This record gives sequence, structure tokens and C-alpha cells, in this order.
Amino acid sequence: MAEDLPALYRLGIVGSGQIARMTHQSAVKLGITPRLFAERFDDSAAQAAPGAVFSHPDALAGFAADCEVLTFEHERIDIGLLQALEENGARLRPGTRTIRVAFDKMYQRRVLRSKGYQVPAFAEVRGPDDVFDFATEHGYPVVLKTVRAAPPGERGVWVVEDRTEAMKVLAERSNLELMAEEYQSIVKEIVVLVVRRPGGHARSYPITEITNQDGAAKEIRAPAAIGHRLATEARQLALDLANEFEAVGVLAVELFLTTEGLVVNELAARPHNAGHLTIESCPTSQFENHVRAVLDLPLGPTWPSVAAAVTINVIGTIDGFDPAQHLPEALAVEGAQIHLYGKVPRPGRKLGHVTAIADNMEQARELARRAEAALRGGRW
Amino acid sequence: MAEDLPALYRLGIVGSGQIARMTHQSAVKLGITPRLFAERFDDSAAQAAPGAVFSHPDALAGFAADCEVLTFEHERIDIGLLQALEENGARLRPGTRTIRVAFDKMYQRRVLRSKGYQVPAFAEVRGPDDVFDFATEHGYPVVLKTVRAAPPGERGVWVVEDRTEAMKVLAERSNLELMAEEYQSIVKEIVVLVVRRPGGHARSYPITEITNQDGAAKEIRAPAAIGHRLATEARQLALDLANEFEAVGVLAVELFLTTEGLVVNELAARPHNAGHLTIESCPTSQFENHVRAVLDLPLGPTWPSVAAAVTINVIGTIDGFDPAQHLPEALAVEGAQIHLYGKVPRPGRKLGHVTAIADNMEQARELARRAEAALRGGRW
Repeated sequence: MAEDLPALYRLGIVGSGQIARMTHQSAVKLGITPRLFAERFDDSAAQAAPGAVFSHPDALAGFAADCEVLTFEHERIDIGLLQALEENGARLRPGTRTIRVAFDKMYQRRVLRSKGYQVPAFAEVRGPDDVFDFATEHGYPVVLKTVRAAPPGERGVWVVEDRTEAMKVLAERSNLELMAEEYQSIVKEIVVLVVRRPGGHARSYPITEITNQDGAAKEIRAPAAIGHRLATEARQLALDLANEFEAVGVLAVELFLTTEGLVVNELAARPHNAGHLTIESCPTSQFENHVRAVLDLPLGPTWPSVAAAVTINVIGTIDGFDPAQHLPEALAVEGAQIHLYGKVPRPGRKLGHVTAIADNMEQARELARRAEAALRGGRW
Repeated sequence: MAEDLPALYRLGIVGSGQIARMTHQSAVKLGITPRLFAERFDDSAAQAAPGAVFSHPDALAGFAADCEVLTFEHERIDIGLLQALEENGARLRPGTRTIRVAFDKMYQRRVLRSKGYQVPAFAEVRGPDDVFDFATEHGYPVVLKTVRAAPPGERGVWVVEDRTEAMKVLAERSNLELMAEEYQSIVKEIVVLVVRRPGGHARSYPITEITNQDGAAKEIRAPAAIGHRLATEARQLALDLANEFEAVGVLAVELFLTTEGLVVNELAARPHNAGHLTIESCPTSQFENHVRAVLDLPLGPTWPSVAAAVTINVIGTIDGFDPAQHLPEALAVEGAQIHLYGKVPRPGRKLGHVTAIADNMEQARELARRAEAALRGGRW
């Protein structure tokens, strides 16, 4: 397999969901054919990339040996395995220093707090008593979340209002490592995407805002409706974190804007759902810049090329609708960009997204909503 | 193989060069995985598309049987074979009515003239006497061209100044069917891209202009520097031709602007080199709209989203430079979009293209030139 690839830039992508699919496409544009380490033949990226390797995670060492650079689209990989690979000379980008922070949320919180970053109060949860003790100190509601990333389409965060609800979550998720966090009164949820090369050169994208209005689907908008001072602070915070953890590739910094200021919610060391709109709204998408960064190639411009962009995810529901069946109606929404991932519909599964760009946010939002509704077979 | 594809939109693409590669990528964005009918494992599109079928053209019927819709990226297919497929119920888009006009330039000229379109004087060439007779009537230089598309990277047009030159071309290309044309005093060479659905709904892209200035590489620019009246005339002419020949998908209408007015140079019934810049400069690229049109899905907007766009092809030269080797330098040209096709370099071979968009044509042109020069390992 390895000899089928161009001599230059032997990039391996671990994972084969939509992030891998769009990253693969960006690499192909540059004349690079990444190899995929996939799980199933019908995985989103495996459908669109030839020569994917379908193997158990334990076989990653063999795959790594065929790649010059290895990058990751998700956090569901054993960190010890990756550390062993790196020690044996594999070039992981990001490296395990970043990966450990991004993959293990408990460690992430500890490191961030120790470095002086603002994070919510948190505690390890070994059993119900840890939650009760935490609630005694910080009050309900308490946020329970999985320490490691939840599998795609599965829930990883619960807001519990009392002891009964807490015990219910713990009982149902006894197989998962959980942690407790103080509930935040969130004014806004924003995401800063930074892309960084091994040498430290870094750029940030226009700040995106995640909104959840009128009970409608979650919307991702850029630019975020925040003032210049706050935007500068958020951007600087994200760049600091990228340098602190020596991130390579995209580092997505999820921030809560609370009445107390900016609080770090989570870090993800890969292209992020909030950055899908960079495909249409920036000269270089987060996917292309991730490829450039992990291969230590010059970064492309990240400035906004449009006034307003809105993305809405297309998420599978219990009625089992298939967005591909409604492609004609969605494509009829002039100016909306339809991205489908080729997945079999399942409730909670991300099946695609739509992005609309426009001269103003209201127009972009209306287009995106209409297209997303059309994909669900509905009207808006 | 066929059962691996989504139930909807079983699209087959015949050919596996860069046009197929970019068409494939556009389909993937929409959640559609086209199948490729390729020739070699290292073909540009085969590197980026899984499950390509590698077979002799004679095996096309078997491939067609697995596809709902068949489309084409080049003109090097036997027209009789395609007619037989269509008669047997295969859904070719465009259909053989368009294909015959697009694939056979002698037939194209005859049909266009009979319908009253302005074309250069032309004649069939069965031997040297046909050229001499033609030159006696129309004078030298005479344009000699291949009736069928030349293989990629091979020359298909010669401008001969006298009998000796004409005989030399005829002797060297005795294996090819040639035709003679009157040399045109060209003011400009423009291309109008039309995309048309089976029902007749059609749209045209901003008119592109092909220039060849200062002995530099050929440049493709949009919008063409022509007046409103002429642009309207060219656009109407292209839409008329698309309707006349019942084109489906992209029809590229190459026009010469001569001192006598617009003359039809050539028609191509597929995405066209002059439309690569639609990826960055229009809401819907020619590739995505080709996919939409051949699957009879609603067309996307084709208006210009930028003030100026310039594409320069990256063509292999005799010194054997490999643009992939110079990717770092080219990516350092801020704002230029680099597209490489994953091909082994050979003289005359299209290895990639660069597109730059900007607020004005001079700026776009400078960026594109710098990036193209960088890919050749040079400075601009």
C-alpha cells in the first residue's frame, strides 16, 4: 500500500468519520493522498478515500510505520499506545503532550488550573459520594461528563438537578469514567480555532459562536457577536494555549463567556465542528490548514472572506429520515451549501451539515435553516 | 461493487484525469460516491476515489449496467459504442446527440454551419491536396487540427505557414484524422460555460477569457474584459447552443472574438479547464453543478462571488520539475489556491493549476503568477 502513495507527504489519518473525510478532500486538492486508518468499510471517509486500512486499533503501529506523519480525527485512542508509538519514533502531530491534554478531560482541567487558566470547579467521580460532596460544595445543578470522548452519536454530558438524577446517570453509565463540574451560567458559548505549525507559527480563525435559540437546532455562526476587546482576549487565550501545549494542526478552544468572564470549557486537538464553515467563509479551510500544519507546510490565510456564515448540523432523529432522500429540496435553497457525509441514518448521528454565507447574519441564518429543514423533509 | 454505493444517485464517471478527480470531490461533498471507469491505477482521479474500475473501454457496457447515470470527462471514447449503450437503455448525460457534436469536430463544424452559427471556413483533410486546395482558397497560415480530441498532453492543433510545413504535419500525424481551418485574427479567446438540466433549465457562468501575454503561461481570467453587449451576446449564443444540442451537464463554448464578431471555436460537453476558477469564484463550482445537472438535481447559483479570478495551469516541462516538490514555496504565496493532480510529471502534462482571487485583476494575476512560478521552482 505505502508504495502507491506519492513519495512526498505520506500522511496517515487515524479515524474515518466526516472530519477525516473533509481533511482527506483538502489533502487531495494539494495533490496529497492521505492513508486512512478506518474501522468499517462504510465509514464516512472510507467511502471517499481509496486504500483505507481497516484494522483493530492495536494494529496502529503497523499503520504508523508506513506513514511519515500521523494525525487524528477523534479522541478515542489509547494514550499509552500513542506514547509508545512516539517513543518508537513515529511522528505524531499533534504529539502526545497535546493529545494527553485533549483526550483526557480530567487531566486537561488539572493542567489548565495549575497553569492559572480559568476553568469551572471540577472533581473526579469514583462513585455517588463524590457527586454528593461536590454538590454540597458547589450546589446543583451539577454537570456530569465523560472523562474520555463519548463515541460518535452518544451523549457525553448530563446536567443533573438532584441526587436522584445523579445516581441514575451513574448507574446507567457505570462503564464510563465520569467527572463532575460546576454548572456555568453561560452568556455565550464561543469557539476559537487556532492552527499551529511545529515551529510555533500559528494563526487563528474568526471566532465562532454556538447558539441554541427558539428551541431550534444548534447553530454555529461566524463572526461571533462579541466586542473587539473580548475577541482579542479570546484569541490571545487560544494562541497561548496552543503554545503552552505545543499543539500542531488545529486546536479548537471551546470557551464559555460567563458573567465572570471567559472560562475554558474544552480543548480539541483536531478540526472541529465549529470550523466547518471555514470551507466557505475563509480563504483556507480548517481542514486544509490542518493538513498544511501537520506536514509543516506554510499556513494559508484565515481571515474572513464573507460578512456572515452560519452552519447547522444535520442530525439523525428517531423517525429515521435520510437527508440524501431530500437532496433535491435542499439543493433548491439557493446559496446554501449542502454537505452530506454518506452515513446510514441513526438517531443522534451527524449525517451532514449545511452552511450559508451572506451579507448579514439574519440572511445566512434563514438560508441555513431552510436548507436544514428541507433535508429533514420538512418546511421552514 | 455496485452494492457498496448509496442506493441513490449511482453516478458513473468515465475517465480518471483531473476533471474526474474534481468532479468526484464535488459529488462527495453532496454525499454521493461516484464510481470511476479508469485506465491506470495511478490515474489522477483513481488516486482519490475508492473502488475505481480499471478496464478496457470495450468493457464499458458492464460498467454502465451498474450505474444509473453515466457521464464523461473526455472525448476519447468510441461514439458508436456510446450509441449502442444508449439504445440499450443506458442513461448517458450528456446523451449521444450532444456527444457526437462535442467529440467529432468535423461533424461539429458541419452542424454549426448548417444551423447558421458563425464558424471559421473548414475542410476535411484526406491528404496533402486537400490542404493545398484549402490554402489556395483561404490563404496561409492554415490551421490543422485533429478531428477527435488529442490524448492528454499531446498536441492537437498546428498553424502551418506553407506547403512544406503542412506536409510535415501530415507526414508525422498520418495516423490521425485531421481537418483544415481558416486562420482567425483573434482579438480575444473567451469561454462561456453553461450548465443545463435534462428538462432544459440552464445557467451560465461569468465569461472567462484566455490570454497569452508577454510570452508567459496561458492565463484564464474571469470576468472577461469585454463589454456588456458582447457578454450578453456570447451568453445567449452559448445558451442557444446548449438548447440546440440538448446538452446535459456543463457545455463549454469556446468563442473567438474576431474583428468580424464572435466565431464558435469549439464545444466541449464536460467541465472545462476555463472553469476551474469557479471553485473559488462562484457559489457553486462547475464540477458541483455538472454533478447536479447530470443527476437532474436543482442547479446552484453561478454568479460571481469575487471581483477577479485568475487561473494558471501547471504544465510539465522537459526539465521534469515536480510541482509537489515545490509545494512549500507555492503555499507561501498568501491567498493563492494550489491544486495538484497527483500526476507523475511529463512534458506537456497538466500537473495542476493555481487560482487566485482578488479585488482587482492585476492583483489576482500577480498572485497566480507567483504561485505558478514557485511550483516550477522558480521566482517570479
